[in-house]
Amino acid sequence: MSIAVDYVEKADQLVEAGRFFFERGWAPATSGNLSARLSDGSVAITVSGRHKGRLNRYDIMIVDASGRPLTGNRRPSAETLLHIALYRRNPELGAVLHSHSVQATVLSLLEQSELLLCHYELLKAFPGINHHNQEVMVPIVANDQDMTRLADTVEQRLQQQPSAQGYLIAGHGLYSWGESVEAASQHIEAFEFLFECELLMRRVRG
Amino acid sequence: MSIAVDYVEKADQLVEAGRFFFERGWAPATSGNLSARLSDGSVAITVSGRHKGRLNRYDIMIVDASGRPLTGNRRPSAETLLHIALYRRNPELGAVLHSHSVQATVLSLLEQSELLLCHYELLKAFPGINHHNQEVMVPIVANDQDMTRLADTVEQRLQQQPSAQGYLIAGHGLYSWGESVEAASQHIEAFEFLFECELLMRRVRG
Amino acid sequence: MSIAVDYVEKADQLVEAGRFFFERGWAPATSGNLSARLSDGSVAITVSGRHKGRLNRYDIMIVDASGRPLTGNRRPSAETLLHIALYRRNPELGAVLHSHSVQATVLSLLEQSELLLCHYELLKAFPGINHHNQEVMVPIVANDQDMTRLADTVEQRLQQQPSAQGYLIAGHGLYSWGESVEAASQHIEAFEFLFECELLMRRVRG
Amino acid sequence: MSIAVDYVEKADQLVEAGRFFFERGWAPATSGNLSARLSDGSVAITVSGRHKGRLNRYDIMIVDASGRPLTGNRRPSAETLLHIALYRRNPELGAVLHSHSVQATVLSLLEQSELLLCHYELLKAFPGINHHNQEVMVPIVANDQDMTRLADTVEQRLQQQPSAQGYLIAGHGLYSWGESVEAASQHIEAFEFLFECELLMRRVRG
Repeated sequence: MSIAVDYVEKADQLVEAGRFFFERGWAPATSGNLSARLSDGSVAITVSGRHKGRLNRYDIMIVDASGRPLTGNRRPSAETLLHIALYRRNPELGAVLHSHSVQATVLSLLEQSELLLCHYELLKAFPGINHHNQEVMVPIVANDQDMTRLADTVEQRLQQQPSAQGYLIAGHGLYSWGESVEAASQHIEAFEFLFECELLMRRVRG
Repeated sequence: MSIAVDYVEKADQLVEAGRFFFERGWAPATSGNLSARLSDGSVAITVSGRHKGRLNRYDIMIVDASGRPLTGNRRPSAETLLHIALYRRNPELGAVLHSHSVQATVLSLLEQSELLLCHYELLKAFPGINHHNQEVMVPIVANDQDMTRLADTVEQRLQQQPSAQGYLIAGHGLYSWGESVEAASQHIEAFEFLFECELLMRRVRG
Repeated sequence: MSIAVDYVEKADQLVEAGRFFFERGWAPATSGNLSARLSDGSVAITVSGRHKGRLNRYDIMIVDASGRPLTGNRRPSAETLLHIALYRRNPELGAVLHSHSVQATVLSLLEQSELLLCHYELLKAFPGINHHNQEVMVPIVANDQDMTRLADTVEQRLQQQPSAQGYLIAGHGLYSWGESVEAASQHIEAFEFLFECELLMRRVRG
Repeated sequence: MSIAVDYVEKADQLVEAGRFFFERGWAPATSGNLSARLSDGSVAITVSGRHKGRLNRYDIMIVDASGRPLTGNRRPSAETLLHIALYRRNPELGAVLHSHSVQATVLSLLEQSELLLCHYELLKAFPGINHHNQEVMVPIVANDQDMTRLADTVEQRLQQQPSAQGYLIAGHGLYSWGESVEAASQHIEAFEFLFECELLMRRVRG
């Protein structure tokens, strides 16, 4: 497939994922960011500060495998390094998505260090999980405005928990990924659903 | 009516029900599954792993009355046996729908064995209920990845509570049914509404 | 205006109100019902058992000022008498709407006899309220499957509280009204918003 | 740019903001109001009592820099003075938006005098905030039906907290602003998201 066609297809998938996230309330006020790896190793990623509910292809720029802009004079998402770090550590990753929901924000502030999910059928949405009683651990890292340091912190946590399918940044939201934009989007959907369940459980149980 | 016309009509109704469930958040990340019995006794059912908000007719395949695929090389929903078991026990059933909502997931984990619904006008949405003070009992069964065993467990519970209009699988969601896709969809709607009421009551009462 | 044009205009407004109620989750599983008084004193009202999110004009039939069907062989809403009673007591009423939301259902079961609303700017949405510190009292009546008796109960409560802009039926939902479908719909909107506020206040305050 | 073109562009942006607020439930029953400053110093503002989800250009009238109607015989929003006061104190303001959500209503009644927001990444949506640990203070003023007095109260609070990006009126909702309708709308979005977080935190923590 030509790299141009590859870009167009994936950019359109990112535009659609952005629209879906925004409608669900997971990308308020230009928050959230979305990327997909292209066949030549470069990465299509949302331009910084764009409204995720009204993206078009012009809002999806290309950076190289180190995160350096390859297209035009626009600035990629401030969190580009977090995307790049994930692609670097796992050659099978095709997409990285970051949602910024109320439930992810609140749960990541209420819990310490990690969130343990168990007993949910929906855990089977994640690769390698085929039973509702398997545990899914979601690392929580402290928020940090220094992206290099934050990327390092995340890297250390993921080395400790190599089977993680996503991580939370405290007060900031969720990163998840997959082999394709569709797979990554379904992992985000599953996590956000499970975060809602967890918060509701805590409220009813008191 | 020709069986082909019957399939097309019911497949379109299942596509629409899937879109509705997904919009309400009752079918995240390809969860949920939907079926309708055709006039020759075979069953139209969602293909495994499809996104319920973007179904089309190609995602609705046909299985025989025992659940064996009759069309193409696609795999029917992993929970086909649960649908088949319900059609077998009640010749008047026209449709079986499974929703996977936050409220059904949480309530099924918080309650033991059964959920008792009473004092709601909306109970009258169910066949045989004509007064808000009648009780509707919703059996809750433990989740099980062995579908044959799970189908047996459900069958035993339904024999004990033959008037049940739906059941919950713990941490997994709701099954309900009706004479038509429309009727089954309204039963799902009524249950999901009542689950929301129950959880809100528990939270306000503390 | 010809009575036919009057019917068409108001039927279309009721169709739109039904669609809006359904989208907000205030009319699950064919619950809720909607009416408007026509210029000759007859009443356009939803046919019994119709899906409120997909109404069309054929689902809006005409009954006389006593609630007797004037059109075709369809059955009007089971709660037609409650609408008729409101039109009878107030010649200025142009529309009566009944919503069936989670918040109205739960609040009407948790509170005894009446709900007092105060300190909300949105109270000014109701006729005669021009200050947020005025009190709006919402009568709550017990649910009753005998419509004649229920209409009598409501009538007695409204005689005691003639300024009421709506009432709740326990476990069943809200009735409100106005000079037009638009006005009645805004009163429903205001009440449903305020019910959500009340329930949220109770949950945070614990 | 001609003032006519300026009006048309900004009116269309206000129409779109109204539709968005209404869909999210932040402008029930004609509540909420929206304005933008035009290039000649006059202000485009919503006509009083219009449904915010169905605005068109005819619902956006023009008032002068003191709030006096310049167009036709329609009445501007009852809260025009609050908009005018904000434009007067800050020459860089291009738009003022008022949302009327459940979360803003409830939080403004539960808290005294001010709301302190901290530890949220989304705080960076506001001008001058570049770290999640910076504090954003939202003044809360008592509701008042006397608009001149309310505008004075707000003015005094904003003189004490000149960096405020929005304020709450108790039981009434949120005012926020920005250099453009788009910027102001994103500030509203960020505040409403953070109010939801705050209320959820309080409920889980109990």
